[in-house]
Amino acid sequence: MIRIGLIGFGYWGPNLARNVAENLSCELVAICEQVPERRARAQRRYPTTRVVAEPRELFAAPDIDACIIATPVSTHAELALEALESGKHILVEKPLAPSTSDCQRIIELADKKGLLVAVGHTFMYHPAVRKIQRDAAAGELGDILSFNSVRTNLGLFQGDYNVLWDLAVHDLSMLFHIVPQRPQAVSAAGLAHFPGHPEESAYLTLWLDKGCLAHLHVSWFSPLKIRQCIVGGSKKMVVYDDLNASEKVKIYDCGVTSKHSSSQRLKLEIDYRSGDMVAPCIENREPLSIEIEDFVLSILDKKKPTSDGAFALRIVEVLEAADRSLRRQGMPIELR
Amino acid sequence: MIRIGLIGFGYWGPNLARNVAENLSCELVAICEQVPERRARAQRRYPTTRVVAEPRELFAAPDIDACIIATPVSTHAELALEALESGKHILVEKPLAPSTSDCQRIIELADKKGLLVAVGHTFMYHPAVRKIQRDAAAGELGDILSFNSVRTNLGLFQGDYNVLWDLAVHDLSMLFHIVPQRPQAVSAAGLAHFPGHPEESAYLTLWLDKGCLAHLHVSWFSPLKIRQCIVGGSKKMVVYDDLNASEKVKIYDCGVTSKHSSSQRLKLEIDYRSGDMVAPCIENREPLSIEIEDFVLSILDKKKPTSDGAFALRIVEVLEAADRSLRRQGMPIELR
Amino acid sequence: MIRIGLIGFGYWGPNLARNVAENLSCELVAICEQVPERRARAQRRYPTTRVVAEPRELFAAPDIDACIIATPVSTHAELALEALESGKHILVEKPLAPSTSDCQRIIELADKKGLLVAVGHTFMYHPAVRKIQRDAAAGELGDILSFNSVRTNLGLFQGDYNVLWDLAVHDLSMLFHIVPQRPQAVSAAGLAHFPGHPEESAYLTLWLDKGCLAHLHVSWFSPLKIRQCIVGGSKKMVVYDDLNASEKVKIYDCGVTSKHSSSQRLKLEIDYRSGDMVAPCIENREPLSIEIEDFVLSILDKKKPTSDGAFALRIVEVLEAADRSLRRQGMPIELR
Amino acid sequence: MIRIGLIGFGYWGPNLARNVAENLSCELVAICEQVPERRARAQRRYPTTRVVAEPRELFAAPDIDACIIATPVSTHAELALEALESGKHILVEKPLAPSTSDCQRIIELADKKGLLVAVGHTFMYHPAVRKIQRDAAAGELGDILSFNSVRTNLGLFQGDYNVLWDLAVHDLSMLFHIVPQRPQAVSAAGLAHFPGHPEESAYLTLWLDKGCLAHLHVSWFSPLKIRQCIVGGSKKMVVYDDLNASEKVKIYDCGVTSKHSSSQRLKLEIDYRSGDMVAPCIENREPLSIEIEDFVLSILDKKKPTSDGAFALRIVEVLEAADRSLRRQGMPIELR
Repeated sequence: MIRIGLIGFGYWGPNLARNVAENLSCELVAICEQVPERRARAQRRYPTTRVVAEPRELFAAPDIDACIIATPVSTHAELALEALESGKHILVEKPLAPSTSDCQRIIELADKKGLLVAVGHTFMYHPAVRKIQRDAAAGELGDILSFNSVRTNLGLFQGDYNVLWDLAVHDLSMLFHIVPQRPQAVSAAGLAHFPGHPEESAYLTLWLDKGCLAHLHVSWFSPLKIRQCIVGGSKKMVVYDDLNASEKVKIYDCGVTSKHSSSQRLKLEIDYRSGDMVAPCIENREPLSIEIEDFVLSILDKKKPTSDGAFALRIVEVLEAADRSLRRQGMPIELR
Repeated sequence: MIRIGLIGFGYWGPNLARNVAENLSCELVAICEQVPERRARAQRRYPTTRVVAEPRELFAAPDIDACIIATPVSTHAELALEALESGKHILVEKPLAPSTSDCQRIIELADKKGLLVAVGHTFMYHPAVRKIQRDAAAGELGDILSFNSVRTNLGLFQGDYNVLWDLAVHDLSMLFHIVPQRPQAVSAAGLAHFPGHPEESAYLTLWLDKGCLAHLHVSWFSPLKIRQCIVGGSKKMVVYDDLNASEKVKIYDCGVTSKHSSSQRLKLEIDYRSGDMVAPCIENREPLSIEIEDFVLSILDKKKPTSDGAFALRIVEVLEAADRSLRRQGMPIELR
Repeated sequence: MIRIGLIGFGYWGPNLARNVAENLSCELVAICEQVPERRARAQRRYPTTRVVAEPRELFAAPDIDACIIATPVSTHAELALEALESGKHILVEKPLAPSTSDCQRIIELADKKGLLVAVGHTFMYHPAVRKIQRDAAAGELGDILSFNSVRTNLGLFQGDYNVLWDLAVHDLSMLFHIVPQRPQAVSAAGLAHFPGHPEESAYLTLWLDKGCLAHLHVSWFSPLKIRQCIVGGSKKMVVYDDLNASEKVKIYDCGVTSKHSSSQRLKLEIDYRSGDMVAPCIENREPLSIEIEDFVLSILDKKKPTSDGAFALRIVEVLEAADRSLRRQGMPIELR
Repeated sequence: MIRIGLIGFGYWGPNLARNVAENLSCELVAICEQVPERRARAQRRYPTTRVVAEPRELFAAPDIDACIIATPVSTHAELALEALESGKHILVEKPLAPSTSDCQRIIELADKKGLLVAVGHTFMYHPAVRKIQRDAAAGELGDILSFNSVRTNLGLFQGDYNVLWDLAVHDLSMLFHIVPQRPQAVSAAGLAHFPGHPEESAYLTLWLDKGCLAHLHVSWFSPLKIRQCIVGGSKKMVVYDDLNASEKVKIYDCGVTSKHSSSQRLKLEIDYRSGDMVAPCIENREPLSIEIEDFVLSILDKKKPTSDGAFALRIVEVLEAADRSLRRQGMPIELR
């Protein structure tokens, strides 16, 4: 039984609390939250859980094995390092930290202490993404040529970090989970129309090995809510539409054949839906529940979680480089 | 009555022929087409129209006032210049020519000869685009901050030119028609996975004056058919979805308000659909019919067509610069 | 502060419990549930609430003012009558009871005892339905000519009652809330393909006063999940699509004009979207929260709830008559 | 080479003309149309075809083998009988005639004369319907339990006949083509809100052999354009959505399994999408082109067309009975 302390009961914290409470291999021992009304709400919902205002109370508690950190990004590194110093395993919300150097400090300290770092890249645990990842790994899609994702809606502007750090982080986790090729360079363009606020819309292009091209469009300021990702393979193409309740994943069999055209030239012709489209049955389970299970089982079995510190670092590397590209009007930035 | 000769009866030519035949201010005098089967089809459909194999027969014909050129892009410049030399007004399919220098030669010769050059940027004549253009020009959208378009499907690869020259040309014509800001720089990234064939998918980013950002995604190789364009104004946002039969244009009233958040920080909050969404009634008329009408009336009234040579040149400038960016892995290219 | 006891913690009970717990004018004093695993789940979630196995414990409890009954329909009447006998106000899940005679006994006893009967017709509290109801009542739709609803998906078969009692009950509550005309006759057709099980799909037609026609299609056995309702008025038509996240309600302005056709006959012509379509902004609040608020405030203010016993009885009258029609292969049955 | 005369060049006639003109086994010899403007349009489009005002000119013409009758329904019987008397094969637009007695006279005269009667039930020739028909006939769907179709939009009211005769005729042709069970009884309910005009919206229920239930909803007066048909089989369910460009047909594998529920009762549970959904590739060919081909080949090969007089008669029988049910407020009417 892993005893867990949760830090942060704002937007995402309540979801973490609920999934911890429902997992039979762990226990929600304590919740830490600075805002008094949120503390009151946490206590109402979990009357037998300790609710405190200071993270240090959790770090010092001998009845806590692991901390989940769901606070603003700017506080991740400090809290993560303190938790590790206190001997707690950690699950940190994504992104792990606002810089690669902070990520590296966290990873190194965890290694030194023999503790586990998991990062809350929830989409890696989504049954739809897992299905696509398995198909890709099994070679069913052929070589992956392209990755295109769009994640837009009309939402709350985050104060401190631009939309890439808030939204593209999801798509990058899917990209790196599904596509094996390593990124070589990144370019980003963004809009920041509200004075004193970071980019609220952005486009991110990633050139990967073997000619694979990835492109992400993220926005807090679009009239359309879109959550769509297209993985283009040389054999099959997959569309993952998170807003389609019954057909989240569609697998298209798109053959490429060559033909003589009537104008005497050899032309490539792509047959539209040469074969059938299949929408496989996707398990209906909450990704966060699988993430918590993976975290707890990784601690119990002393194994690496699917989304560990090294994985999270790769994403922060891209986000850092994308920020540099944003400041230089889309100039491509080499990675590594 | 404008007497018209049509050159090219391949994919698009039959649509032009039909619209010329149905317009009461002009007459379809002759059709020129190299491929014998297509000539036979043209003759069956228009038994009283002359059908010939050589463009020169049209240029030399005294009973032809204007030529419509609907041949492959690589032949546009030569045919356009010969037509002008022969004293014919011209309507050339988009893009006007494969290079800015060719475009300039055509524009200059037309000016010298006092002839009209129209270019077949059909979307500028689409009732939905006209509605958005009028609203934007009347200030109803506020300042235009962003333009985002996606035009993808699984289609025939064009042999000679990449997908930007084939598809982005549509979106650029809408962009320049609706958005008054001038472009400053362009960046493009593309995929070309089929040996010997140009890019079949591409992303194009345009930085415009006053911080406006435009982004185009075009592809011949996507499992999803999408024809969508979002214009983001400081007052309203407009979505034009060409595949939505009954609600092609949706106008969203998205207010931005500032609020104190519970964490004691002033935060911007975007209210989702603070006001209502309106889908205005859009006239159901074929854009090509309006385009032909504009061409014929421009000749009769000696006025400039909506889509003239100078407009078409701006688009070819961007496409040329985008090709340079493509060859340099997304390096932004200054315009002008 | 109204002190509430909840009976039934199966499918819907947990939602009721959560909304009672979050309403500041009431308190979730006790939960009654027969199934041990569900009792354990209820106790985990509400550690300070009494969780019991016998309804009588709630009826006898002096610290309970009102009971919410969320058990199978067949048990409603007995539990409701006992609760009333014990002096508790009641909120009974829909349908109120399996027969009009049971409904009448409940209503009469409540009247005698001076207690309140509310019925959980949740959709009447849905902000989208309230918007349509207000527009209809204000005359903005003109005379209501038709009501068409479809509620289908692939779901669990209920054991005891056919799909009309389970699903059509929702649509009937919307119909009677929005449309003032009284029903005159009902006809129903249904499918029951699984031996020993009641109809899993059904069509219900209602003829109302002034020529208004209502039609419902409900099914537990359709591959498509549809939750759609169309209200046709002489001035405007309204579509309520509960699965459309951002545009739940669409109001169409459809003019009817008369025209001379080319064949010398006077013909009616319906202009498609003669005016604009408007999707009004709909408040994003959980209907059940409004229902609980209405129940609690009705007790405190001694007023009738929106969905009271008399309203619920009208629905059971139609369901009872529909069952008779089902047994006679669609024979229309007069109402009242 | 079958020489064809077309009677009627109104709404549908031009489509017939085009498909006759493009079929290499027949020739469009003459067009008959009463309205002068339409005659002019026909002559402009087919300069080498005779265009006349009187059907008798076609019946008397020795160079015409077959007549296509695309005039208002009320004229079908008279024109069809005259054409047959003159020795012409006929293709009559649907419905064949406004009464079963007229249909029978046409069928009998054709038999006597040894001539062919085809009826323009175009949907039977739609590649999507043919795919479903083949799957059903091959037993892949299991026993067909239900047929549900919806065909609504905001359209022109037809003057003489109600919406069942105009729209339901399509769905009935699909029903009888796909489902082998014979209908036993029919019930219909309708709305007719415009004085002097027939029903503009209607619901039609058909009870078929072996417990199969069919239901049609048709309307000229709905804000939503829907063209959807669901065929429910004991093994698979098929959805045909004519407005879905890329996935017209979806085949769902919906298993039914029995389970013990937690409340100790044996319950049926329907697994939602227990297997995968497959959208088969559907040939993209115009149904009318296949219909014309079937008509011409049936004449040449002296075989029965897919949609012959006997098939059309079954549909008129249902429509006639539905009219009787409409007049008696939904009273079910026995068939045969």
